[in-house]
Amino acid sequence: MPEALKMPELELIDHAGLDSAVYLRIYLLGLKIFVPITFLAWAILVPVNWSNNTLELAKVTYSDVDKLSISNIPLGSQRFWAHMIMAYVFTFWTCYVLRKEYERVASMRLHFLASERRRPDQFTVLVRNVPPDPDESVSELVEHFFLVNHPDNYLTHQVVYNANKLAKLVKEKKSKQNWLDYYELKHSRNQSKRPMMKTGFLGLFGDKVDAIDFETSEIERLSKEIAAERERVTMDPKAIMPAAFVSFKSRWAAAVCAQTQQSRDPTSWLTEWAPEPRDVYWPNLAIPYVQLTIKRLIIAVAFFFLTTFFMIPITFVQTLANIEGIEKALPPLKVIIEIPFIKSFIQGVLPGLALKLFLTFLPAILMVMSKFEGFTSISSLERRSASRYYIFNFVNVFLGSIIAGAAFEQLNTFIKQSANQIPKTIGVAIPMKATFFITYIMVDGWAGIAGEILRLKPLIFYHLKNFFLVKTEKDREEAMDPGSLGFNTGEPQIQLYFLLGLVYAVVTPLLLPFILVFFGLAYLVFRHQIINVYNQEYESAAAFWPDVHGRVITALVVSQLLLMGLISTKELAQATPFLIVLPVLTISFHRFCKGRYEPAFIRYPLQEARMKDTLERAREPNLNLKGYLQNAYIHPVFKASDDDEDEDGDFYQKWEEESVLVPTKRQSRRNTPAPSKISANSSPSLPDVVQEKGEP
Amino acid sequence: MPEALKMPELELIDHAGLDSAVYLRIYLLGLKIFVPITFLAWAILVPVNWSNNTLELAKVTYSDVDKLSISNIPLGSQRFWAHMIMAYVFTFWTCYVLRKEYERVASMRLHFLASERRRPDQFTVLVRNVPPDPDESVSELVEHFFLVNHPDNYLTHQVVYNANKLAKLVKEKKSKQNWLDYYELKHSRNQSKRPMMKTGFLGLFGDKVDAIDFETSEIERLSKEIAAERERVTMDPKAIMPAAFVSFKSRWAAAVCAQTQQSRDPTSWLTEWAPEPRDVYWPNLAIPYVQLTIKRLIIAVAFFFLTTFFMIPITFVQTLANIEGIEKALPPLKVIIEIPFIKSFIQGVLPGLALKLFLTFLPAILMVMSKFEGFTSISSLERRSASRYYIFNFVNVFLGSIIAGAAFEQLNTFIKQSANQIPKTIGVAIPMKATFFITYIMVDGWAGIAGEILRLKPLIFYHLKNFFLVKTEKDREEAMDPGSLGFNTGEPQIQLYFLLGLVYAVVTPLLLPFILVFFGLAYLVFRHQIINVYNQEYESAAAFWPDVHGRVITALVVSQLLLMGLISTKELAQATPFLIVLPVLTISFHRFCKGRYEPAFIRYPLQEARMKDTLERAREPNLNLKGYLQNAYIHPVFKASDDDEDEDGDFYQKWEEESVLVPTKRQSRRNTPAPSKISANSSPSLPDVVQEKGEP
Repeated sequence: MPEALKMPELELIDHAGLDSAVYLRIYLLGLKIFVPITFLAWAILVPVNWSNNTLELAKVTYSDVDKLSISNIPLGSQRFWAHMIMAYVFTFWTCYVLRKEYERVASMRLHFLASERRRPDQFTVLVRNVPPDPDESVSELVEHFFLVNHPDNYLTHQVVYNANKLAKLVKEKKSKQNWLDYYELKHSRNQSKRPMMKTGFLGLFGDKVDAIDFETSEIERLSKEIAAERERVTMDPKAIMPAAFVSFKSRWAAAVCAQTQQSRDPTSWLTEWAPEPRDVYWPNLAIPYVQLTIKRLIIAVAFFFLTTFFMIPITFVQTLANIEGIEKALPPLKVIIEIPFIKSFIQGVLPGLALKLFLTFLPAILMVMSKFEGFTSISSLERRSASRYYIFNFVNVFLGSIIAGAAFEQLNTFIKQSANQIPKTIGVAIPMKATFFITYIMVDGWAGIAGEILRLKPLIFYHLKNFFLVKTEKDREEAMDPGSLGFNTGEPQIQLYFLLGLVYAVVTPLLLPFILVFFGLAYLVFRHQIINVYNQEYESAAAFWPDVHGRVITALVVSQLLLMGLISTKELAQATPFLIVLPVLTISFHRFCKGRYEPAFIRYPLQEARMKDTLERAREPNLNLKGYLQNAYIHPVFKASDDDEDEDGDFYQKWEEESVLVPTKRQSRRNTPAPSKISANSSPSLPDVVQEKGEP
Repeated sequence: MPEALKMPELELIDHAGLDSAVYLRIYLLGLKIFVPITFLAWAILVPVNWSNNTLELAKVTYSDVDKLSISNIPLGSQRFWAHMIMAYVFTFWTCYVLRKEYERVASMRLHFLASERRRPDQFTVLVRNVPPDPDESVSELVEHFFLVNHPDNYLTHQVVYNANKLAKLVKEKKSKQNWLDYYELKHSRNQSKRPMMKTGFLGLFGDKVDAIDFETSEIERLSKEIAAERERVTMDPKAIMPAAFVSFKSRWAAAVCAQTQQSRDPTSWLTEWAPEPRDVYWPNLAIPYVQLTIKRLIIAVAFFFLTTFFMIPITFVQTLANIEGIEKALPPLKVIIEIPFIKSFIQGVLPGLALKLFLTFLPAILMVMSKFEGFTSISSLERRSASRYYIFNFVNVFLGSIIAGAAFEQLNTFIKQSANQIPKTIGVAIPMKATFFITYIMVDGWAGIAGEILRLKPLIFYHLKNFFLVKTEKDREEAMDPGSLGFNTGEPQIQLYFLLGLVYAVVTPLLLPFILVFFGLAYLVFRHQIINVYNQEYESAAAFWPDVHGRVITALVVSQLLLMGLISTKELAQATPFLIVLPVLTISFHRFCKGRYEPAFIRYPLQEARMKDTLERAREPNLNLKGYLQNAYIHPVFKASDDDEDEDGDFYQKWEEESVLVPTKRQSRRNTPAPSKISANSSPSLPDVVQEKGEP
């Protein structure tokens, strides 16, 4: 652990990638924002709050937390000005830190892009929605189009095959192969008896056959099918999707093509930066434009319903899954259930179980939604899921805890309330919920970090898998793969603490130290985990930072609106207009930052591209770029193939090695370097090359 | 007039420019949307409404208009389903027409861009925020930057001079020259007496001097000052603004440069399509990025206050400017004022006068705001002003008439009302205001068109000017210039009729024929005016269409929300959810259109650029493009110069003629072809060329 802390940032970037290094900076950002805020709040606001006796006079039950909060100040007191001035100070400080950090991350990203090795995606553009042409194949069409419109720069291209069926077959074969290994192992241990199996569903029904023979014949059959399917995919023009990876002679030309509109129809020949090869999400490469609009609409509506009404089916399940229900449905169990210990356990666990299960699967559900929407890279899928998860958390955890009601009840309340009543309703409830959120930070935040360092969840999962699923060494290795960091679940959770910290900074400063401890601990632990445990799945060069920045700004504006609502109930008439300026300023600051820094995360400046091109040309004047790029974007299913088909393997291997990205220094337990989630399904072994049509 | 109607659209575009032709299509769009809607509404909704007797039974006073409206249907009646289905039908029809029209205008624009003559702006990119460099001048810096980053394509560039002071001096000299002409004319008529004048303020105070001698010496002084200032501007590096017009060897390269990010700092080296030379708004070319953000914020806040609180100062003026106030301030007038006829006239006119004056100057105020915001072309200034004017009209004319209160009172009501109450409040008031809006359409719309065909306002202005200001022939010519169409005032007014038509289509179909008559008449009249009267000031190739489309969509969504509000008071519980789908669908449709068609109005597809380049290269292989572009973007003040300095005039004249854009067939009364508003200030005469540093 101490070693992990000593590693300088540059080495960290080298070791774990820029994404991970910048992910850690989110925790640092939390510390940078909240350390001074905590000191200021304790130095100024706590004494101001403490030295009143409103709560004592009111003769209500109150805790010490309340005595330190804004509730302890009498109505109409001039002391509220202290809070309002502090709200200004906190806003300015937060914005200052945010701006510094945005600037820093943007320059880190540009530096990273400038200093990194040659990568295929630097020269490549993903072209989608190639319009259909009756006379030419997709491949010819793409080539002609780019030879005409980028004549001096076009180098080569690769078409995208619809290999979803092939991928399925390969996966099936791999599973059979695994079973075969398992039975052979079993047979070698106990030579006397040949293992038997049933051919039906889950091996429970059907005829009993010799397992080794059966699996061998199955594998043979699948091998043939795979060969046929592979033939079909590479030969049948219908298996070619209207998309292609087009490579250029220079980074400059690729940057130009990615940033410009190609055709007069803005929905065809859509160009964008190609993601890294391992970051590509292949199934989504061929969705036409109109479908995309419709899919987004469907998902927007679905997400709205998911966020608002998810409690309804869960409540319904809960009413079903009670003791009486079970006893009715399964009378024989009655004897067991009626044992007092088991009864109370079931009564305690059952109601929460449905909710807990739903929340566990929520990130996966959101991921499926994002996939349906048609994003083409895993990194963008994760970013989208993270946004949705944040909104869900905001509505159901933050607002849900404050107003204490399911989202659809809140919605009902909000629609029927006036615009200035909503922040008031929430604002007034805020100080009362401080104790709850302190507990929440300890239970969810602190305990979560402790669980992370012990890797409790993966440990349980590993043992479960080991017990139920692991049959061979290969399985065990896969079960032990720690996976990647999981931006889509981690980041929205951190953002919740930003929100809590900013909302309570002025209202109940007592909460701040808990937030500080969370950020500090989490920084240490995740630094350790990133260096020693996680594998990086892709490298997006911190493309997520604009989202992080935007969500902290959201939290800031929410905190300002709620403070306005709270103060407006304190009988200090001049105060509210004084606070209206804050959100206006904050949003304006956000727009400034968006214009100033966001382009660095979306576009590739021509100056940078040109510089890198010139350097490279000077260093390696005889580079065979075409050879380097020719097979960079191959569907992973064509790489992950049978061991018996590696005639072309050496050829591919060469390019594979050259296109390996940001090698990690740690010894991975897996034998391929940082495979993507998709290719992880297909076994890593000697690859072969798709028999692609040669380009002239 | 009939001839104007017969002119086919292509000839119209040729004659008056694409902007004007597409402007006419806004009226056509109105007809296309509302003719079928009117028929349907009268065929279905009018009988449904008429065949009830709710109003008779309720024993309230009602007009026939009300009897034809939705108010005549009893609460809870199933007949409301007819209205809701018609709301769906109208929405689908409007969206269908909008889509067709967007498609048509986009293809017209692309066709126009593809078929038009060579223009300097096709090859030129406006570069702003050139970062300061201690070692190099702006000109050198620009040249080096583009030689490095666009080495194969860079052709030449022109720096932008800060000639605002020079322009002022030239304007002053022109005015003096005019006075001199006037005095000489006077002297030639009456040889006996030399004209005298006073040198002080407005010729009312100061020493009395010989007018001809004085003006001659003044002109001489100014000529010297202008020469000195011109010398200074062209020599002093501080007079060069950090902006430049950079020209490329091909349209393709200019399109690439305009659409890409150049530097790693996204706020420097900002590139955008250069506007036409006559469309450039010169004073705004050198505003740095941070200032732009702040200026936008200031204007946003200022516009909010203008829209919301403009009634306060006007009401204040109105309370001052009453009969008693005048009598008190100027007792001698009492006798005159007390005459009954004059008294009633003053009482009738005075209260409205302040408001009327304000509304007359509003477009000018909004224009000043847009100028302050820093847009760089006149067309974008007008588009921005139009958006603001629309919002102002929406809040103060539409909502103001319905809820009958100033905007700040509305705001107060809305803040205190719940979200579902606001559409209800407005929706319920809508049917009651039908008669008012019918009158409004007749008074403002129909009468406005009649005034337009008589050109009443310009006629009055012309005679006022003729009486007070015109001194020489040149003045008269200027006073007779009909000017351009005025997109910033005209379009928002049309949009108000779209809004009224869509809102009342379901509620009170009786209003629709009035809208139809307006659109029909206005189309005829403006077609005539565009062909025979107006001069085109610039050509933006219909860049305003996305705004037009967006505002019709806004009107559609507003109409749907108000209908929801209205229906929700009709005691038909299932109805409201049925209507929620409409705005969701409409907004989704808008997003689709935005992605599908808007890029055609913002970017220049590389395919098109390449095609035009190739054609041109085949046709004119020896074109001297550099010579053609070298002086295309000269500050108008350098063109409009003294008659005695035309040594280089011929040289410039040549380029001037070549760069004339879309010549109109009619004989302009002015002797330069379609000068811009800015250059209109400086007298059109033989130009000379700025002594610019030659480029290698």
